[in-house]
Amino acid sequence: MVNYSPALDRLFLALADPTRRAMVEQLSSGPAPVSELARPLPMSLPSAMQHLGVLEAAGLVRSEKLGRVRTCSINAATLSLAEQWINARRQDWERRLDRLGDYLSSIEDKEDHDESID
Amino acid sequence: MVNYSPALDRLFLALADPTRRAMVEQLSSGPAPVSELARPLPMSLPSAMQHLGVLEAAGLVRSEKLGRVRTCSINAATLSLAEQWINARRQDWERRLDRLGDYLSSIEDKEDHDESID
Repeated sequence: MVNYSPALDRLFLALADPTRRAMVEQLSSGPAPVSELARPLPMSLPSAMQHLGVLEAAGLVRSEKLGRVRTCSINAATLSLAEQWINARRQDWERRLDRLGDYLSSIEDKEDHDESID
Repeated sequence: MVNYSPALDRLFLALADPTRRAMVEQLSSGPAPVSELARPLPMSLPSAMQHLGVLEAAGLVRSEKLGRVRTCSINAATLSLAEQWINARRQDWERRLDRLGDYLSSIEDKEDHDESID
């Protein structure tokens, strides 16, 4: 079954680029003005702004203009969506490994039992 | 600073599609033949195979041909890469919130101290 989630599509697509991940990395440590966010990046300010737009559209970053300075901050709740999706997968495969473990134990028990009968 | 990681680029891009996430969801509960993986999907087998190719290129899925049946399984280690990257961000912003909490407490303490002097 396909669970359509345009929010997850946009979120994972936004994270699929090293520049955008660098922005999320920096903003996770605290808000920053756009100029400061763009300065370490090997690209023009307009290119950096484009990446920022993708992050904002995905809801990962919020920006607010105070006077002449636009300051960006991380939206942790959106990153949690990705975390939740991955955690759910981990739970699935851990449950599966548990079942596999139970099955292998039951075979071992059966073999022990069979041997004691022989 | 931009940390280039083509592995993370491919991984997040692979997850940015509902069909591919559906495949990862199914395979997290256990291996499945390609035909079984494709059956519930609203697309042709070749389209499903293309999505599977993206997942394999990202290292998220492995497939093995036994006789005439190709069976796919999840590669949990690759999904852990995404988990680790997100966890590192969570640690960053939790550290930041801790520092903010310490700062607010120190202001409160100072105000209490100032009041007791008044």
